[in-house]
Parts: sequence; structure tokens; C-alpha cells
Amino acid sequence: MPTTKRLEHDLAQMADLQERLWAESTGGGQRRVLLVLQGMDTAGKGGVVTHAVGVFGPIGVEYTAFKKPTEEERAHDFLWRIRKRLPGPGMIGVFDRSHYEDVLVVRVHDLVPKSEWETRYDAINAFEQELVDGGTTVLKVFLHVSYDVQRERLLRRLARPDKHWKFNPADIDERARWDDYRAAYDAVLERTNTDAAPWYVVPADHKTYRNWAVAELLRETLAELDPRYPQPDLDVATLRARLAPPH
Amino acid sequence: MPTTKRLEHDLAQMADLQERLWAESTGGGQRRVLLVLQGMDTAGKGGVVTHAVGVFGPIGVEYTAFKKPTEEERAHDFLWRIRKRLPGPGMIGVFDRSHYEDVLVVRVHDLVPKSEWETRYDAINAFEQELVDGGTTVLKVFLHVSYDVQRERLLRRLARPDKHWKFNPADIDERARWDDYRAAYDAVLERTNTDAAPWYVVPADHKTYRNWAVAELLRETLAELDPRYPQPDLDVATLRARLAPPH
Repeated sequence: MPTTKRLEHDLAQMADLQERLWAESTGGGQRRVLLVLQGMDTAGKGGVVTHAVGVFGPIGVEYTAFKKPTEEERAHDFLWRIRKRLPGPGMIGVFDRSHYEDVLVVRVHDLVPKSEWETRYDAINAFEQELVDGGTTVLKVFLHVSYDVQRERLLRRLARPDKHWKFNPADIDERARWDDYRAAYDAVLERTNTDAAPWYVVPADHKTYRNWAVAELLRETLAELDPRYPQPDLDVATLRARLAPPH
Repeated sequence: MPTTKRLEHDLAQMADLQERLWAESTGGGQRRVLLVLQGMDTAGKGGVVTHAVGVFGPIGVEYTAFKKPTEEERAHDFLWRIRKRLPGPGMIGVFDRSHYEDVLVVRVHDLVPKSEWETRYDAINAFEQELVDGGTTVLKVFLHVSYDVQRERLLRRLARPDKHWKFNPADIDERARWDDYRAAYDAVLERTNTDAAPWYVVPADHKTYRNWAVAELLRETLAELDPRYPQPDLDVATLRARLAPPH
């Protein structure tokens, strides 16, 4: 973990880099970033969005929380609703859950036959390769909370009436399937950890570390893209003259 | 302008109120907020979004910048593309430019016949009344920059190569029509300043004041809504027992 001064510098750099990425697109740049956040309940996807992604401000950032699919969404291929929310040029798209739910909750609960979800790992890899080929940097983060810390966090929600709205009794049923989810996550990490779109596993038992680690991944990703302000060919002298005050 | 301590308190309250508004919707609440930002170039719509709206964080906030309409958008009624970006329950929608462009730039440049744009004031009032009836608080802000300060800001952009990407030579043509725009804004303020959706004119020559004033409008709007966390009927004792550690 960095010093406070270092952290302030890094956060300012993140905001600056994001503005450059956005600016670059106004000059025709096609590059963009997609942050995919996955993790068990209480892992802190929302906290990461608020504290790491929040550094960027609202312009140029698009956040999508994928919930249980609607009837219309289920009538289409599992990537249909995902494609509709992909970031445009210059944007940072943030997926709070994603197409990975279609090989996680879907696999754990047998929501489609195994023959169907089995084909999805390859489909996901092809999809992400297509995104990368089109100028998207795909940053996949698995927030890894431990079984014991999840218990503590659920108990804390129960102890605070103002947090009850976040508590879904079904979360405890999901927790009972911890081993099944671990197996499903293992398969994801093994089968979709590609060169084009690798996974980052971020320990999520400590909130400050978790938020910093994701911010740092975003900062490094943007620094590597090294986006540049467009340099339009302005006739500065003429434009200055046209802005001269009236006599 | 408040003291720093007061400001920190107010910003924390803004973030808390926004979370409550979002939380309320998860319990079935239908209320939502739409912030409409209008103003001449350099008035600081983007600055307000970054510094005032940015206090909320990405979750529960949806930002839309309306550009020159596409061919598809022009083939529809002028409110068509607006309706597609209206905030859902619990959300704060932010419009950077809006349906008001259809009685501003459109009127100044005669993009449609007068007989057509003349009907739009009533159409806008009816539309906004419909939004209010459906649970939307419509907050319309006109950022009022002066002719001289606009000149200073355009000159400053010209002086900084890293700001050239924001400089559109056409902005100077628009500036030459300052009186026409003033007349068009006067008509907007006169004809669409309804009880259901009043206008707020915020002086925008001073950035700090401008950002604070819009933040304060948002804070007061949310405080008046007084959104509440849902209180789901949880059987806390049973849920706690289910979370007991294994022996």
C-alpha cells in the first residue's frame, strides 16, 4: 500500500488518463476499457465501483449491474444483453456481474443443461478476443472474499437496520453452495484466463487493499494505453483575432 | 459559500441521500431525479457534472450528453431520443444538453420551420408534467456565463494545446449569434418555467460558486424527497442462526 501522498498522485493520474482516453476518442480514437467485476456476495463489487471507479467522475464511464435476466433477455443468446452495454470509443465500461454469471450461477443451479453451459467458455473466449481486436482492453477482476469474512459481513448487515435492504435471505442459500461456486470459479479461471483477456484475482477480505488494488489495475491499464489528447490543426492566430474584444 | 467543514458535511449528506434514493427503489419506490443542464459553450456543464454530480459515485447515476441528432433520431419526434435516456426508479439522470436544444440551436439556426418549433414549448411542458406525475423530480439548471467570460475561457483553451481537443472553431460562429441565443433562452425561461418543473439560473462566471450552487440544488432536492431505506421484514434471529459457524 502506498503513502497518502503517493495515493493522491496516483488518483490524480487516473483521472487525467481517463480524460485523455475520452479526449482521444473525440479525435477518432477507438480504444476503450471494459472492467468486469465478479465475486461472491459481500465481496465488494459495489465498494470497488464507488471508491476505485468513482475516481473518474461520471463523464466517459458507464456502469451496468447485470441482474437476473428478464424474459426478453433469456429469449436471446446469453451475450445479447452484454453486447448492448459494451463501452463505446473512449469509454470505460464497468460490469458489475457479467456474462460470467452464465457459467457461474447458471452452472451451480443447473439453469440450463450442462451441454449448453459447457460451450459457453469457448464462446466467451471468442467474444472477448473480438472485443480486444476491436480496441477494447478487457480487465477481468475476481474479488475473492473468504468464507469466514463473508459470514462476518452478512452478520454485520443483519445488525444494522439501515443495511437490511441489501440483505437477501437467498444469499444464505447461495452461501450453502460455496463449494459448488468455488468449483465454478475455478473452471472460469482455468478456461477463460486467456492472453487476450487474463483474470486478476484480488483478495477482498480487506476493503482498503481491495479498492486500492483495483484502482491500481485501472491506473496501470490506462498508463499502458498512454492515451493522447488529439491535436486538431487549429489556426490559433486567426481564432484569437476573431475573439478580439469589440472596440 | 459555506465553510470547508460545512461543505464536507453537505457533500457527505448528498452521497447518503443518493444511496437512500437508490435503496428506496429496491423496495419498490418509484421516485427519481432528472437534472437538466443547459448553457452556452464554456458555461461549465462538464465541470458541474464532474464536481457536483461526481459526489454521488457511479452507482445510481446515469449521464447522457446529447449531441447533434443522428439521422435516425431526426426521423423521430424530438422527444424520442430523450425518452430513451430517462432515469429509472431510484436513479439520478443527468442530461448535458437536452430537449431544450430543440428550441435553442434549432430556433437560432432555423433548422425546422418556426411553425414547428413554436409548438415545442407546450410539448415540453406536457412532457415534463408527465415525468413529474410519474415520480420524477425535474431539476432544470441554466448555467449563465457572460459574454466576456466566455471570451476569456475560449482564449484560455487556445493558449493550451492540451485543451485544443475541446475547441471547435464553430463555437466562435455560435458566439456571433449571442443575441439570438439570449432571445431563445429568454423564451425558454418564460415559456417553460412551470410549477411542475421550474428553471434555476445559476451564474457560471465563477467555477467554485457554480459547482457549489448546483451541488446545493441537488442536495436540497434530495433532502426534500427524504428517501428512506426499505425495511424488509427479515427474521433476523433465524438468519443469524443460519450464519452460525460450523462446529
